[in-house]
Order: sequence, then C-alpha cells, then structure tokens
Amino acid sequence: MYARGIPRPTLERLPRYLRALRRHEDAGEVFISSSRLGAEAGIEEFQVRKDLTHVEVTGRPSKGYPVGDLIAALRKLLGLTGQRDAIVVGAGRLGVALSQYPGFANYGFKIVGLFDSDPGKVGSVIGGLRVMPVDSMLEYLSHEGIAMAIITVPAEDAQGVADQLLEGGIKGIWNFAPVALDVPPDVYVRNEDLAIGLASLSYHVSRHRDR
Amino acid sequence: MYARGIPRPTLERLPRYLRALRRHEDAGEVFISSSRLGAEAGIEEFQVRKDLTHVEVTGRPSKGYPVGDLIAALRKLLGLTGQRDAIVVGAGRLGVALSQYPGFANYGFKIVGLFDSDPGKVGSVIGGLRVMPVDSMLEYLSHEGIAMAIITVPAEDAQGVADQLLEGGIKGIWNFAPVALDVPPDVYVRNEDLAIGLASLSYHVSRHRDR
Repeated sequence: MYARGIPRPTLERLPRYLRALRRHEDAGEVFISSSRLGAEAGIEEFQVRKDLTHVEVTGRPSKGYPVGDLIAALRKLLGLTGQRDAIVVGAGRLGVALSQYPGFANYGFKIVGLFDSDPGKVGSVIGGLRVMPVDSMLEYLSHEGIAMAIITVPAEDAQGVADQLLEGGIKGIWNFAPVALDVPPDVYVRNEDLAIGLASLSYHVSRHRDR
Repeated sequence: MYARGIPRPTLERLPRYLRALRRHEDAGEVFISSSRLGAEAGIEEFQVRKDLTHVEVTGRPSKGYPVGDLIAALRKLLGLTGQRDAIVVGAGRLGVALSQYPGFANYGFKIVGLFDSDPGKVGSVIGGLRVMPVDSMLEYLSHEGIAMAIITVPAEDAQGVADQLLEGGIKGIWNFAPVALDVPPDVYVRNEDLAIGLASLSYHVSRHRDR
C-alpha cells in the first residue's frame, strides 16, 4: 500500500509540496503546473517532476497535476493517514520546544506525552502537557498504543530510554541525543544533530568567501 | 581550498565522523579502521569508505585512517576553520532552544546574538544572552561581521527578517519558518521543517505495520 524505497532527499521534499498544494486547495484551485508548484515550494522544476514520479498521480498536458489527487497521494505516501501521535522524552529546552512546535499540527501530528526523569520537572504543566516521570512511560505506552517517540535526553541516558521505548512498542524514534542507538532492524531511527545545520551553513559560507 | 560538490547526504554524515574521531583522539588513538569508524558513527562501512573519498586523506592497509589528519581534513571541509558565530532571530521556544543548544559548541559554533521584535521579550536575559530588538539588528551586524543567521520567526515575518539579514551581510540562513525565502544566488538558505522528522517516522512506521 505504501511505496517502497523512496530516496530520503525526495522524502524530505514531499511535505514542502504538500504545504504548497494545501494553499492552492484553500484558494480553490483544481490544477497546478510543476513550474508553479516548484516556485511555491522553493524547489527547481526538474526536481519537482523527478520527485513526483514516486507519486501515482499523473499530470495532464497544459493543465498540470490535479491538486486534490496529489494531496491524497502525498498524504498516503507520507503515512499521514495513519499513526500520528508521538511522545517526547526529555523536558529540556529542546524537548519543550518540540512538544510545542506549531508546525506539527499542519500535518496532523500531535505530541500527546512529555516525559522527564527530573523530579523537579515532573508534574509541572508546560504548554498544556503535564510532565510525566520516565518511570511511568512503559505503562503509559502499553495503554496508549503509540508508535513514535522523540528523544531529547543527554547522550548517556539515550540508550536506556530507547530500550524502554522499544519495550513499550515504539517503532520509530527521532533521536536528538548525540549518540548512535542500538535497536532491532524493524525499528526506524532518525538521528538528528542540529549542529549539522550550522555546519552546512559554515561550509557554504566558507566556499563563497574563498571564491 | 574547499572541496566542491559534495552530495548533501554525505555532508550531513561528516559531522558524525568528526564526533567519533574526536573521541578516538581523546582516547589517544592514532589510527582508525573504516569498520570501527562506521560502528561508532552508526553508519555502514561501505558508506564510510564512499563518503571518505571526498576527503583528501588516504587510509593505510591494516592500520586504517590517520585520526589527526582525518579530523583536520573534515574540519576544513566543513568550514569549521572559518566563520563560526551566528545569530538567532526569533526568541520563541524554538529560537531559545537553538540559542542554548549545547551541541553547537562541540563544533566550535557560537550563538552570539538573539533578536526579537516583541517589546515584552527585548531586554530580558535568556541563558546568558540578552534579547535585542530586531530594529537594532542591522547596526549590530555591520559592527560584528557575522555571516550566519537562524530564522525562527513566524512565516509572515520571515522574508522581512531575511531582507534585513542580507543587508547586514549575512551569507548563510538556516530557515525554520515554513516559507520559501527569496534571496540572491550567492546566499545559501537551508530550509528546515521539523514536521519532516515526524513525517519520515510516520512513513517508516506505516510501512512496517503494513508488511
């Protein structure tokens, strides 16, 4: 039912198409050309055409892609018709920012639980979420049937947290801790190191300066 | 002086090698094999070998890569020998989390200024940084010679902020606002949509469930 083997860079661009398409749908437009979609998503037209070969929707000559069909296909492809609840483990600044991040709702994602091991944080309410103790996480997960978790704890605690998440049935982990996690092959881990963002800026700025 | 045209996925893995190599250097080790480097960085060995073809350091048979040379080459490649100060515009939860993010220091990056347009935030001190008014940003940049900026303002304010950043000499923008920015070709923009992280988890979790 879900397409297999979409390259990661393509996968990362699909939500940008989805966002641009939703604006078009809201504006009452029925078709969109690849050049216009590219312009609004900030992606080159040739890349748009290439990316959309992974989507089972065909553009029509002189009209473009049907907006509604393309939105439905992208949602299915991105798994946005399925599991959309997630928890955050680690109520530090980053964990709190992520648990409150308004952009998640645009895709129907919801952070439903926030956990921390610090007794000073447990019980406090941050942006509508009460911080729960990590000790209670396994029980929580066994009741809620959640498949996705975000880890923002320090590196030394991350594997222990991951082990508990796996026991609780989590199948996808977004890992912000700067450490590689050991998980079984059926669990997907997305490692995020925010310093890479600045490193890529630094790389491009340096190249520019040396030209 | 800087290598050209490194694929973005490779570029994103280089800091992970750098982190693993620093641990080895700290432990007093002089050589590292590609299999060990891969294991510690959480990357397949074939990928390590492929990625390191972009680095002008050659491994030695039965010994591996010289750790010190590899660190120096990666630092140069990532621009970590150059510009490392950046500012954050937008003192919301995400902007504050980024301005405090401890992982930046691992690469020598430093957030030196935090700006916001909200008079209720301006002047307050958050984690050692005093929030400065966006109105003063241009003057600040003209004195400091900073090349990198992070935008975490709402979508409708992002282009206005970007225009001021460009006027202030910024050459690299890390854009967390959900909107495509219009900038000249010599300016590098890295668009970040955190929802993509959850979308990729959702995609993989859905695939797994349907198998």
